[in-house]
Amino acid sequence: MGQLMGGDPSLLRKINQAAVLRALRAAGRGCSLTDLARSTGLSRPTVEGVLDGLARADLVVETKAAETTAAGAAGVRRLGRPARRFRFRAEAGRLLGVEVGARRISAVLADLAGRRLGEASRGVPPDASAEERLERIEQAARALLGEGGQGAPAPRAVGVGTPGIVGQDGSVALCTALPGWTGLPLGERLRELFGAPVLVENDANAAVLGERWVGAAAGCDDVVMVLAGLSPGAGSLIGGRLHRGHGGAAGEIGALHLLGRQATPERLLATSGTPIDPLDERAVTRVLAAARAGDPRAEEAVARLVERLTHDVAALVLALDPELVVVGGWAAGLDQVVEPLHRELERYCLRAPRVVASALGGGAVATGAVRLALDHLEAELFTVAEVPD
Amino acid sequence: MGQLMGGDPSLLRKINQAAVLRALRAAGRGCSLTDLARSTGLSRPTVEGVLDGLARADLVVETKAAETTAAGAAGVRRLGRPARRFRFRAEAGRLLGVEVGARRISAVLADLAGRRLGEASRGVPPDASAEERLERIEQAARALLGEGGQGAPAPRAVGVGTPGIVGQDGSVALCTALPGWTGLPLGERLRELFGAPVLVENDANAAVLGERWVGAAAGCDDVVMVLAGLSPGAGSLIGGRLHRGHGGAAGEIGALHLLGRQATPERLLATSGTPIDPLDERAVTRVLAAARAGDPRAEEAVARLVERLTHDVAALVLALDPELVVVGGWAAGLDQVVEPLHRELERYCLRAPRVVASALGGGAVATGAVRLALDHLEAELFTVAEVPD
Repeated sequence: MGQLMGGDPSLLRKINQAAVLRALRAAGRGCSLTDLARSTGLSRPTVEGVLDGLARADLVVETKAAETTAAGAAGVRRLGRPARRFRFRAEAGRLLGVEVGARRISAVLADLAGRRLGEASRGVPPDASAEERLERIEQAARALLGEGGQGAPAPRAVGVGTPGIVGQDGSVALCTALPGWTGLPLGERLRELFGAPVLVENDANAAVLGERWVGAAAGCDDVVMVLAGLSPGAGSLIGGRLHRGHGGAAGEIGALHLLGRQATPERLLATSGTPIDPLDERAVTRVLAAARAGDPRAEEAVARLVERLTHDVAALVLALDPELVVVGGWAAGLDQVVEPLHRELERYCLRAPRVVASALGGGAVATGAVRLALDHLEAELFTVAEVPD
Repeated sequence: MGQLMGGDPSLLRKINQAAVLRALRAAGRGCSLTDLARSTGLSRPTVEGVLDGLARADLVVETKAAETTAAGAAGVRRLGRPARRFRFRAEAGRLLGVEVGARRISAVLADLAGRRLGEASRGVPPDASAEERLERIEQAARALLGEGGQGAPAPRAVGVGTPGIVGQDGSVALCTALPGWTGLPLGERLRELFGAPVLVENDANAAVLGERWVGAAAGCDDVVMVLAGLSPGAGSLIGGRLHRGHGGAAGEIGALHLLGRQATPERLLATSGTPIDPLDERAVTRVLAAARAGDPRAEEAVARLVERLTHDVAALVLALDPELVVVGGWAAGLDQVVEPLHRELERYCLRAPRVVASALGGGAVATGAVRLALDHLEAELFTVAEVPD
């Protein structure tokens, strides 16, 4: 696998390459060298160097100069040969994002610019073995990549969001939510399956990357996202970067409520009459609907859910002081969550952050997984030297 | 005030300067150009350039080459003129570190290498006005700097640790612990008083800097330090850098316990018989001593204190996943805190960090304040250009 070499000089080069790539993508239909030099502030030789590298990777192509609108409008090169124009080949490969859930595997296919091409999902029993779950991942992916096997090209990179603590090698260090998942070399298994680089990340971490990319946290560098669920998790961005913690366990707040009151989600939902499995989204949805319809026991259950969510979020906010809190998981579907949560945070926190519901809803983790794959692709494009494993 | 200019090139220069300064300081008695070039890996012209800058600032002096032990041992320049040798002038100025407490102002004086030259403290009533408190700061500082006024030179820089949320301009944005402190332009007032740059930081943040510099967190980049007290606060290092949060309120965990149980420190200590003001260190010390002597009510009070500390620390650990937790404030004096706390964290956290007691005890905040002043001095030495305010 490639990796970035050197110190500051390569950092500068990386920044240059990122600027050119961004300008190329933004232009969409094609840019001239002059356009790129102007929009990036770089010299023409630097731009040419970056384009050469991208062309060698088959990711940039020279377009026919049928129209020279941009150059013409700027009054440049009206006479003589039209300027050479270049275009990013987003279609040159595909990226895959996968969410591993307790009851569902979701996958999203995207082009090399991260544009969504399709999605697929497969149900899986919560008590499925690790091998069964891996099989469903393969099925969901095949539905998107094409059954062809030999014929269909491998994705350029695969991002994966999974519950649990993920090691630096992409193995699952600890996962209490999925049977047989602890210790699984998930990255390695999926690398063999897809024949492509696989980036594994904790699901809440993937979700916050997704929300920042194209969701509720766009443009925000200090974000806490809470995935409300049976075992709630949080993903945090600090200064625009994922905060994983020293051992990858940052935001694994499942035990927070045990420190205060004794409420568990099971007990909270059981208030609405019959015990409900909070892993069962449909059951949760039923309670929420009943609360909206005015059922007092369901209303009480929802109030307690919000109370626990407040406890979890307040602890995170007091520790981290983020600019923004994004509420995801089933709590994102609650109209009555964001406002009460914000009010409660104002009571407890010296400085209360903004609170918003997830914009991506159930798609946050898989979208973030695509972003992981895209980040990997970009790092690969900016690789200065190839180092054998 | 000076500030760092430019992008990556100046970063590189800063790294070079820091390396030379570190080598000079480590050598203590003086180094030759050859020594410095060898120990830093930099070229002689680069080292000469850095030395020139430091000499202009009166911080480096050429020493008499009475002995050339190091060069002689390396077999270099045995013949001919002895090599020129240079020494860092730590005595060229003084740094001041101040802790603002509810009942006490503590100040530490250090030389420009951060070596402690003396300390002083002044009691202050908890209900003192902001002006009274500022006056005690001045008294403690004068005791160290000399009464001379006009005669005594101003410190090169002053670091201050204070309770509350500190704004980027050194004013106190919010402080519930000290009367009249909210809104005080503390940095500005002390700049006028000392005629020197003043760096103001939250007290727990200063404490963690102190522990990392010369205390229990030496060499550790991911640290949470908890200052146990009436309104407990935490300071966190992430990747070796202070995590202040978006609005400077990270670690202001005073309200954490309200989320869970209803225990307050007053009530906890009241268990031991008579209500005790936890701001009163002597009263807390009495309870701790009684617990050690086997008084069952005092033991119960201490057990509850540890319980609340566990709650606070566990929330921080779940959110941040640090490598190390340092326990400071009065809890640092409890022999029976570190082990039970670590055991409890192992129950609640998927990955429990190491837990140690503060090595600096009551001196952590003032020591960290000296480190703030030293950091400022170093940044100033590395200034590439002076920019007028």
